[in-house]
Amino acid sequence: MPIRISLDEIETLAVDRLCAAGADLAQARPVAQSIRRAEQDGVRSHGLMYLPIYVEHLTCGKVNGRAQPQMSQPRAGAVVVDAGHGFAHPAIDLGLPALQEAARACGIAALTVRRSYNCGILGHHAKRIAETGLIGLCFTHAPASIAPVGGRIPVIGTNPFALAVPDGAGGARFVLDQSASVVAKSEVILRSRRGEPIPEGWALDAEGRPTTDPAAGLKGSMLPSGGAKGFGMGLLVEVLASALSGAVASRDASPFSGPVGGPPGTGQCFVAIDPDAFAPGFVDRIAALAEAIQAQEGARLPGARRVAARRRLDAAGIEVDDDLAGRLQIQKN
Amino acid sequence: MPIRISLDEIETLAVDRLCAAGADLAQARPVAQSIRRAEQDGVRSHGLMYLPIYVEHLTCGKVNGRAQPQMSQPRAGAVVVDAGHGFAHPAIDLGLPALQEAARACGIAALTVRRSYNCGILGHHAKRIAETGLIGLCFTHAPASIAPVGGRIPVIGTNPFALAVPDGAGGARFVLDQSASVVAKSEVILRSRRGEPIPEGWALDAEGRPTTDPAAGLKGSMLPSGGAKGFGMGLLVEVLASALSGAVASRDASPFSGPVGGPPGTGQCFVAIDPDAFAPGFVDRIAALAEAIQAQEGARLPGARRVAARRRLDAAGIEVDDDLAGRLQIQKN
Repeated sequence: MPIRISLDEIETLAVDRLCAAGADLAQARPVAQSIRRAEQDGVRSHGLMYLPIYVEHLTCGKVNGRAQPQMSQPRAGAVVVDAGHGFAHPAIDLGLPALQEAARACGIAALTVRRSYNCGILGHHAKRIAETGLIGLCFTHAPASIAPVGGRIPVIGTNPFALAVPDGAGGARFVLDQSASVVAKSEVILRSRRGEPIPEGWALDAEGRPTTDPAAGLKGSMLPSGGAKGFGMGLLVEVLASALSGAVASRDASPFSGPVGGPPGTGQCFVAIDPDAFAPGFVDRIAALAEAIQAQEGARLPGARRVAARRRLDAAGIEVDDDLAGRLQIQKN
Repeated sequence: MPIRISLDEIETLAVDRLCAAGADLAQARPVAQSIRRAEQDGVRSHGLMYLPIYVEHLTCGKVNGRAQPQMSQPRAGAVVVDAGHGFAHPAIDLGLPALQEAARACGIAALTVRRSYNCGILGHHAKRIAETGLIGLCFTHAPASIAPVGGRIPVIGTNPFALAVPDGAGGARFVLDQSASVVAKSEVILRSRRGEPIPEGWALDAEGRPTTDPAAGLKGSMLPSGGAKGFGMGLLVEVLASALSGAVASRDASPFSGPVGGPPGTGQCFVAIDPDAFAPGFVDRIAALAEAIQAQEGARLPGARRVAARRRLDAAGIEVDDDLAGRLQIQKN
């Protein structure tokens, strides 16, 4: 029988397990909050399910649980954070206020983070920027899993970008959050664990041939969404999150899973834009654009599923299955 | 027998025809140069083939051939140009030097253009930014032709973005230039003229059903590349090129072809980033990334086809068929 725990309990549990594995509170708390928000949005892959990986990475030294991120601002619109191989979340938390202030002063600003780590759900960072009235445009890269079209050696990661647009009332009108691959790599890993085949069109084997064997796909490459155009999107993310930030390239980064390879040293890039600096009426134009999408039967705004999950969330909390409860040593009441 | 004319002759001819249709030299010259560069890159759809459309739009009042674009700089990193319903190219030419100066001062800057028009090959503008040592990230929208996934009423245009990355030696290491749709709308128009069917997966009819009839597709919607992810990319472009700039929305813009509907009033957004503001070594990281792609047999860098066209370009010039030569009143030697 599965256990149910509340969002508050999830956050407390996560802080506890991360600190027990060697993180200080400054590192643990923002990560625990990100787990809470993932569960709240129904994105279980980045919720409690990820906690054992964070714990493993603290233990094996992939993440420095006592890192102190360092910030500088080389130009009026350029904010730079060195995450020091700690978690990404505290580094981003350090940089965001300076980014927002710079965007208001200059009209647009960028924050890059290097010597960083998996930042969880990218859309959450974009949403936080939009909640301050700015457009948030975010990029994060990952260990290489996508080969260029026509090639067979992965060069870029699933490299997502996210866009959140302010609604003029302290919220986001919509949040776009999409990777460069046809499906998330975690989908292939899931099928591999279950011993199920994957549909053709998701991945290639190490020789660059189409495959329905998830294990062969994981040794090969993920297919980019829409072919060359998906690779192009991932390349944009590589340029901004990795090359601009001064992070390790996707093709040199250690895996985001398992204990091998030391810190991944990946990076992020966050662009914030103050719409008031460019033309009046932005919020109204966005409201009309959103309405033109929502008014169509069968169509929905990007991120609508997560919004619905937040609304649906039962006060009784989140269901945790026995396997995960065991791994996290959660006691049944 | 087709006529051959040189690039210089193309530019002179274009200036001549545009001025004869009512444009002043300040409006005509940048457009003529864009036609020259399109032919040089082998992108014939935006070369001389487009000149009769420009001429028609000057004649019918869709473009004001004597517009004087106005620039302002509301914040240190925000440059704004009102194109005054003239051509896009002179408006962009006015704003680019201020954008580049602002990007160097602030680390990142953005230029928006409103009351604008089709800006031709977006990658050319990105390339010019990269040639000054900055990353160029460009967005332009177009009259609506793509419905949201699940819907059937077009909300966004084929809305391309372009990325050009400096090579540290006054050139661009690569130029990415891609639309949000599976194929360019011009491909469907071409098949419609020829009376040929289109492959399934390119377009939907007005009822939202898959179609292989190009005429039905033109009355319906273009399919986004990779489904929701292509629509997401086009939505990003809509937010920046249209909503941020204060331009007319894609769904309200008059067509880029034909004499009906008055000025389209669309917009652009150009972001320039100084990589030196964020971390040293950018150019080397980009060179290594490009090499990791190019070194793979069968893979190529984005924009490689245009680079090859420039290299191949015969000194004898460009071939113009009889039909186009007739429409442009080009005399045979």
